[in-house]
Order: sequence, then structure tokens, then C-alpha cells
Amino acid sequence: MPVTDQTPVVTLLEGNTPLIPAPAIAAQIGRQVRVLVKYDGLNPTGSFKDRGMTMAISKAKEAGAKAVICASTGNTSASAAAYARRGGMRAFVLIPDGYVALGKLAQALLYGAEILAIKGNFDRALEIVRQMAETYPVNLVNSVNPYRLEGQKTAAFEIVDNLGNAPDWLCIPVGNAGNITAYWMGFCQYHSLGKCDRLPKMMGFQAIGAAPLVTGQAVTHPETIATAIRIGNPASWQKAIAVQTASAGEFNAVSDAEILDAYRFLAAEEGIFCEPASAASVAGLFKVKDRVPSGATVVCVLTGNGLKDPDTAINHSQNTFKQGIEPTLDSVAKVMGF
Amino acid sequence: MPVTDQTPVVTLLEGNTPLIPAPAIAAQIGRQVRVLVKYDGLNPTGSFKDRGMTMAISKAKEAGAKAVICASTGNTSASAAAYARRGGMRAFVLIPDGYVALGKLAQALLYGAEILAIKGNFDRALEIVRQMAETYPVNLVNSVNPYRLEGQKTAAFEIVDNLGNAPDWLCIPVGNAGNITAYWMGFCQYHSLGKCDRLPKMMGFQAIGAAPLVTGQAVTHPETIATAIRIGNPASWQKAIAVQTASAGEFNAVSDAEILDAYRFLAAEEGIFCEPASAASVAGLFKVKDRVPSGATVVCVLTGNGLKDPDTAINHSQNTFKQGIEPTLDSVAKVMGF
Repeated sequence: MPVTDQTPVVTLLEGNTPLIPAPAIAAQIGRQVRVLVKYDGLNPTGSFKDRGMTMAISKAKEAGAKAVICASTGNTSASAAAYARRGGMRAFVLIPDGYVALGKLAQALLYGAEILAIKGNFDRALEIVRQMAETYPVNLVNSVNPYRLEGQKTAAFEIVDNLGNAPDWLCIPVGNAGNITAYWMGFCQYHSLGKCDRLPKMMGFQAIGAAPLVTGQAVTHPETIATAIRIGNPASWQKAIAVQTASAGEFNAVSDAEILDAYRFLAAEEGIFCEPASAASVAGLFKVKDRVPSGATVVCVLTGNGLKDPDTAINHSQNTFKQGIEPTLDSVAKVMGF
Repeated sequence: MPVTDQTPVVTLLEGNTPLIPAPAIAAQIGRQVRVLVKYDGLNPTGSFKDRGMTMAISKAKEAGAKAVICASTGNTSASAAAYARRGGMRAFVLIPDGYVALGKLAQALLYGAEILAIKGNFDRALEIVRQMAETYPVNLVNSVNPYRLEGQKTAAFEIVDNLGNAPDWLCIPVGNAGNITAYWMGFCQYHSLGKCDRLPKMMGFQAIGAAPLVTGQAVTHPETIATAIRIGNPASWQKAIAVQTASAGEFNAVSDAEILDAYRFLAAEEGIFCEPASAASVAGLFKVKDRVPSGATVVCVLTGNGLKDPDTAINHSQNTFKQGIEPTLDSVAKVMGF
């Protein structure tokens, strides 16, 4: 890690998230395939972004920044706000006017983010935050910040520490492609240290409506229910292609329907509630399941907590809610099937 | 733990939540007091209930139950549903008709809970779930389930393991009073094993509108914004009194305004987002701060994740959201104060 004795470490004790066995997913594949999920939604602000943000904010504080800025409506803004405020800095979040429901920003607002909505689109917001960081003593913590990937690679370390080796396959949702890049960096560093004797095949999954790494074409208007990977022109595009090549990996696309099926399956069969975007890794594994080698160990990365997006849970749960039941033992027992 | 080789352990790798230093809270107290928060909102379903539910569901499965049942609209129903489904059992949740917004149940529904709303009040629902468990092969996982406290005591073990000793004070929100009972059980067991050489003063905090342990009177219509501790007649009332006596502890009440102040303080100064009920422990510590011994170590328990209750975050954040800003570097810089 690029820290020294002089770095003031701003931490919420992120990381060390559970690697949970997923026997119901494994049963769908059969052939002694072992499946586990890395549940990074249990980080302090509810997503994997915290792994990188502790680095970015610690380095910003070391550099004497009084404020940080990002253009984000999701997990990055929440994480940036929490760590910046904890580090005694102001946290600015630039978004397009009318772009997002207030609910999406509730978490960042409560952490004390100062949210500025400009009369312009998201690209313009990105441009302005870059200029702000060049011109004023404000630190940019968007995904271009190099320290974020350094922090994110720790998830790969933890998986190897847990399994005693690298998995055969790593399935991971891909939006900006920073996380797949960071995981690969982590596996390679551990491999060169002798902590694992193999490297995983990196299987990246995008949503069909936002799949530039699959099609090779940037997407002007990306569309998917999986908002955290709704990105048409990934910041780490070239790095992701290098990971694919080096790991003999693949990029594949899954539909929103497949993502929602995996999202419900994870909750109702494994007891794990993740963001829709996270479920893309499991939807993808289901899609290519016949190609998983028999007896392989597969890790699916779940990047965010399902509690981040209660609307999708309400709108897409297919379970039972029965009302108007007579308040007697017999009528309740009957409804329950006894 | 009351488990044997025959117990089929149903787990989501709950527990091992971070004990996070809280320097901003400590600074409000001064006098070298050290404050840490036990952030149990980072359990798999977002609350401390998971610690007990893994026990309750494992024992239900061991006993051959095909279904579990509870009467709950909050953290218990979500936790019960996740663990029951993971264990291959059905999960029934009984609630009063029209009692609760669907949003509160989104998480349980997605986990596959079958929610039954009866034409009757909450007490009637509790009565029926008890009768169901007596009459049919259905296991009751409400807080009367004795295995739940056995699981919950592990939080005390972790605190001692982290600190190398018990804290001087433990500040904890009190609703049904099961958790304060479980923590005390954990500290006492570790003490008798020689893992710590002291026991904490147990400081329980209730909301003013739901403070039976403070007033000595059950409350017919408890009222507070902290829904997770909105309980007028605690199930573990007598046990909680015994904890108070044995630990030379206290029960005190905090107002909703004090709870919300602590809730915002935790988010904006420490970077930690908890449920309103959780913030009662910090609100209480602020209230009695002049009585904390100089140099003492205080742990505040944060029982649930703030993401469970986005409405409170939106309605009670006092932070900045500025709209309609011209999309230029100069106008953004000006709004930011440069």
C-alpha cells in the first residue's frame, strides 16, 4: 500500500467482508463446482467503494486537502462523504439538475455531503470536477483517482487468505471496470509473493444495455436496472481489456431479467440481499454455467448492499403478502397450509 | 454455545463487526475518555438480530421444523426470513392489517418471507404465533426464543477480544431488553473464563415515549421515531433489572430530538450511518457525559444499519443541496466558497 508513517489513515475498518458459501447456486451448476460470494455490501457505507475511499481520503488528507469532490449519484458519493467528513474535510458532490431522486442521495446527505446540481449533463459535471481539482485545493475522488484501485485490490487478498489459494474463476460485475482491474492487481501481487500458486480466469459481466466491453463500442445512452453498472464508456476500458487477455477471461452481457432473477435467487435461496448490479455476477455465472470446469471453485463478487435500493426490492419481489386474515389460530393455520 | 455435532449450522458468517474508534464523540466528553462504537449494522441482514437468528434457525432445523414464524415488522422479520430460507425452511411473518408501510417489509419479502396480515392488533398477532408454535410443526423465532440471546452474547466476546478487556461502560439502546441481557451474559461468561478482569457498567437508554424500564410502568401506546425500540412492555424486563443491579448500571431516557442529534452527529462527524434506535446509545452517552470517569473506555452499541430507514435520513438530514447552478468552473467554485 502506498502509505507511509506520515499518512494520516482515515478508516472505518472497511474490508474483511465475509466470503459466504453459496450452496444453492452451486446446486444449479452441479459437477462438484464450489461457489462462494464475496459480500462487499457489508462494508461501512454499504459498498466496495470504501476499500478504495479509505486510501483516496487518507492521501488527500496527507496532501493537505480541505475538501474533496466527485461527480456521482451512487455508491461513490456516499463513500466519499463518509470518509471525507470523518477525516475533517468537506465533501462536495456535483450532479446534473433533476438527474436523480433525492432518495438516492439520502445517505450522502446524512453523512454531510454538500450536493451541487448544475444546469448541465453528467459529462459536464465530470469536466467541472476535474477542473476544480486542477485549479483549487480540492481533491478529486472519482474513479480516476489512482489510490482507489490500490485499496480495492485488498478484496483479492482476502479471498486468497480465505481459500488458501486463488479461485479458478472470479465472476464480477463490470461498469467503469476499475474493480476488475483492482482485483486482478491484487491476485497478481499475491501470486508474485507466493501466497497463491494460480491466477483466476476473470469473468466480467455487463448489463446488455450497457455492455461496451462486450460489443467493443461505447454506449451513448446506457440503460439497465443495475444503476451501479450503467456506464457506457468505462474509465478503465484499456486496463480491463488487458485483464481479459492476461487471465484468459471473458466479458459477457446479461439482461435485466436475468439480473433480477439472480437478485431474487440470492435473497430467497441463499439469504443474501445485494444491489441489482451485484447480481450481474451471479446472473452471468448462471449464463455460462455449462462451461465451468467440474470441481472448480468460483467466487462471485457482490459489490453493494441491497438496502441501498429498496425500490427495486419492493417492485421486483415475487413473494407472498396476504391481507385481511381473520385473527384466529384456525384461519392463520389454514392460510399457512396446515 | 448450545450446539452439538448434530446441529446443522445455518450461517451467513454474521458477527465480527467492527469496533470503530469514535474520536469526535470522545472530544465532546474530553478528560481522556475513549469511545468506540460496535457497529452491528454490518451484519448480513443489517442488524444485531443475525447473531441470535443463526442460533434460533439452526436449532429449529435440528428439531426438524419445516417453517418458522414471528410477529415483527422490523429487523427480526428480515433476519428470520434470510436465515430460514437459507436453511430450507418457510418463513412466516404475522402482522396487523394496515399496520405498516410495505417499504418496511421490502427486505423480508425479497428474502422470501410469507407475510400474513390479520384483522387484529399486534398483541393478537403475538398470541397467534405462540399458539401456532404450540400446535403445529412451526418454530417460534420471536424474542422469547432462548437461543437468540445465546447468539447475541457473542458481541460482548468480540468487544473483549478487541479491547483486551471489558470496557468501563457499555451504552446500549433498550427496547425488548433482550440485547442488554445477552451482552451481560457474554461479559460474565468471559469474566468467569478469565478473558477480562472487570465487568462494565451497563448503561441502558430508552426513548422518552417508550421508557418502561426508566419509569417502572408499562406503556400502552409507546411512541418514538426510533421504531426498533418502540416497545412498551419489554419481554426481558426482569432480566434487564437484574443486569442493572448486578452491573451497578442505569436506565435513562432520551428524547427523539436528542436521538436525531446523535444520529446526525454519528453520520457527519464519525462517518457512521445507523438506525435512529441505535443512536439512542450515543444520545444517552452525551446526556450523562459529565458522569463518565476520566480516562474511561466506553463502548456504544449501534444495533442496526441506517440504510434500513432511508425516510428518516431524507427527512432529518440538515445538510446542503443546492440546485440550478450555472455549469461553469467559476460559478461552481463560488458556490463552494472559493
